[in-house]
Amino acid sequence: MSERLVRSSRRAGPRPDPGVVHIGLLGCGTVGGEVLRLLREHADLITHRTGRRLEVAKVAVARRDKPRRVPVPPDRLVDDGWAVVQDEGVDVVVEVMGGVEPAYTYIRRALALGRPVVTANKRLLGTHGPELLRLADTSGVGLYFEAAVGGAIPLIKPLRESLAADRIHAITGILNGTTNYILTRMSEEGWTFEHALAAAQEHGFAEADPDEDLDGHDAAAKLAILATVAFHAPVTAEQVYRDGIAAIGPREIAYARQLGYAVKLLAIAAERDGGLDCRVHPTLLPLTHPLATIRDERNAVLVTGAATGPILFSGPGAGGTPTAVVVLGDIIEAADGRGSGAWPVRDSTFLARPVLPIGDLVVPSCLFLEVVDRPGVFAKVAAVFGEEMVSLASIVQKSRGETADVVLMTHEAPDGAVQRVVSRLRAMDVVAAVGPVLRVQEQEPRPG
Amino acid sequence: MSERLVRSSRRAGPRPDPGVVHIGLLGCGTVGGEVLRLLREHADLITHRTGRRLEVAKVAVARRDKPRRVPVPPDRLVDDGWAVVQDEGVDVVVEVMGGVEPAYTYIRRALALGRPVVTANKRLLGTHGPELLRLADTSGVGLYFEAAVGGAIPLIKPLRESLAADRIHAITGILNGTTNYILTRMSEEGWTFEHALAAAQEHGFAEADPDEDLDGHDAAAKLAILATVAFHAPVTAEQVYRDGIAAIGPREIAYARQLGYAVKLLAIAAERDGGLDCRVHPTLLPLTHPLATIRDERNAVLVTGAATGPILFSGPGAGGTPTAVVVLGDIIEAADGRGSGAWPVRDSTFLARPVLPIGDLVVPSCLFLEVVDRPGVFAKVAAVFGEEMVSLASIVQKSRGETADVVLMTHEAPDGAVQRVVSRLRAMDVVAAVGPVLRVQEQEPRPG
Repeated sequence: MSERLVRSSRRAGPRPDPGVVHIGLLGCGTVGGEVLRLLREHADLITHRTGRRLEVAKVAVARRDKPRRVPVPPDRLVDDGWAVVQDEGVDVVVEVMGGVEPAYTYIRRALALGRPVVTANKRLLGTHGPELLRLADTSGVGLYFEAAVGGAIPLIKPLRESLAADRIHAITGILNGTTNYILTRMSEEGWTFEHALAAAQEHGFAEADPDEDLDGHDAAAKLAILATVAFHAPVTAEQVYRDGIAAIGPREIAYARQLGYAVKLLAIAAERDGGLDCRVHPTLLPLTHPLATIRDERNAVLVTGAATGPILFSGPGAGGTPTAVVVLGDIIEAADGRGSGAWPVRDSTFLARPVLPIGDLVVPSCLFLEVVDRPGVFAKVAAVFGEEMVSLASIVQKSRGETADVVLMTHEAPDGAVQRVVSRLRAMDVVAAVGPVLRVQEQEPRPG
Repeated sequence: MSERLVRSSRRAGPRPDPGVVHIGLLGCGTVGGEVLRLLREHADLITHRTGRRLEVAKVAVARRDKPRRVPVPPDRLVDDGWAVVQDEGVDVVVEVMGGVEPAYTYIRRALALGRPVVTANKRLLGTHGPELLRLADTSGVGLYFEAAVGGAIPLIKPLRESLAADRIHAITGILNGTTNYILTRMSEEGWTFEHALAAAQEHGFAEADPDEDLDGHDAAAKLAILATVAFHAPVTAEQVYRDGIAAIGPREIAYARQLGYAVKLLAIAAERDGGLDCRVHPTLLPLTHPLATIRDERNAVLVTGAATGPILFSGPGAGGTPTAVVVLGDIIEAADGRGSGAWPVRDSTFLARPVLPIGDLVVPSCLFLEVVDRPGVFAKVAAVFGEEMVSLASIVQKSRGETADVVLMTHEAPDGAVQRVVSRLRAMDVVAAVGPVLRVQEQEPRPG
């Protein structure tokens, strides 16, 4: 990897204006383009508010000759990220390229050089967040990432700053817009999964390859970032238990509604038995739960602190423009923090709080079965629950001719026991199909 | 007023530990007591997060001999606020005494002396906020007031920092817990106003003298603070149009619900025709509006920005413990900002954005009349609307024997014209009573 030292051309001239903040942009896609547009359209407002002018000094892109919606002066376009990271004239490095590499290498270098970094990169922080926070701290510079979780919804700063003196018990959120849109449409319109996914792609908020969203990877990365900040513990995405929504259809959602529940892909990080419970999975929420009413592609996060009780944040969880606004908010702060070493809350001094295995979690679950509709079958099914010490709270059975739908709600039970039940049911001749297992979130988690 | 110079006793000994932040507390009531309790109970957590110890150096109280739930070492208790404000050993002045004076004089002095100030005082900031922000700016110190609006809900920092680069179109909120509790109970249980108020007082969140809440003064002060920050314009509470909930009963709420609306005491600050629209009044909200579902004493604020669209914040809007947590968050930040002069957003450089008169506002309104139930009466009533050029959208009439209830919904009309209609109706023999006029908020205000 080339680490040529790139000298700022500005250094050759007179001293730069101290009222100007020079931004080095890594990447110029949807978010980067909107950063440039807002910088221009809101220039007076920003200067008025901050007393400074924000100026883009360099923009690193993969292809300099690509046509751009928001034009960049050709002399500021470079095709090498190092030209941004190592430029001494750059006051704040802004990474909006996405993906783990080369963003990871660039940001490490920028922090080591003492340059504050603003990033919107959830995948990178979900993977290397704790390490980068440590590096920022030892380097005495700021690493700002409000835009990495929840789009324009302020979450990171409230957790890091306003609520820093509280002990957070739980973070519960809808962190992925695509899956929430799909679940909403299946619930409200009875659409099939495929129809809802196609509509999400048509609206432009589901990727052409939506697997990151559907299998919970996207939400897990965001949850890891929130958990790291909220619990002062180094949590990475791979430690988050993950289950996607692909097995859920309008039928399961309709049964859940009959029982008084909405189905949401919930991201939960909570204190449990001296450790942390971190998981992303489709969840049954009482219809009156504040997160049950979050519709379509909106995101929402419920923060439950010992002193504050539940606080709800909701808004647009993605989109170039909302994300760009909070990137700019971070740039303004990074520019002011520079040199002062101000770092109100040190996320790097992590507590040892292990992420606990899902098998030990004790929750109610809801199982959807299709069984052969003949006498004695239900007794066989029920016996499996009994043998695994999982007790049943309610049962709905509906004949469909040859087979019957059976919806079983358990009392609180260890997740591992429920998983053993599922394995045994799958192996039974009289069970035609085992649908998704939906854990139930009756209320906000309290400390274990 | 005495301005004796009080020397810190600590100055006589060795240099203080730079890792210790010395807090001077003005007032030790509900919030102050909780600040002390959380400082003790969360001491390790705070030190771990910030690398500093927060220590209470002095506490000024009205009566030193009063018994206290959270004990204070007698040598730190003083009965003179100046002993806190002028103590050179105090790093952060924390004002939780409430009321305009003497808090105003103390805070001005502290800022002039270059000491950062944290305050939870909505009345003071609603009255003198813009002036104090200017003074903080010219003195180069921070004035922190997250706790002054919305209890533990982070609002000020998100508006000042994360969303600083956006152009905010509107702030719409439920900012008073007592009135929201009363309206919720009248709506859900059919309680009378008096019953609901008594229950609120029993629960401890309505004051013995609840007028500040009921007449909208409390919400107006909070709205002025939010508007000042969001619109970068100096707004004070006296500029906010204000109408309370005393005229509303379960009957009006039931009629509103029939029409598809909830009744909420809404605080609205919005861009309109080059100026600002700032008002607190009972409002009809569609039942599907995100603020319509905020129940009981909870507060909520919807921030609508040009780039971000609507973002909702909701949580406990008051209470000693939630408020104390964000006071501590501000203290942590104030301690770090000290000396650096860091002031990311300058609220002091206000824009000239006049608060516009309510009479020019164009909204739909809902009127509740009691009229004599005989032929020709309705024609007379309708004629008044016609003559004032206010057109009617819907009419509900219900006979009650001698009289009839009439609920009239207007199309959009200038507020001044609706007020003229009301005056004329009140003077008519055939109109037995004119109930509250409820303005309608169909959706989030957009720029005018």
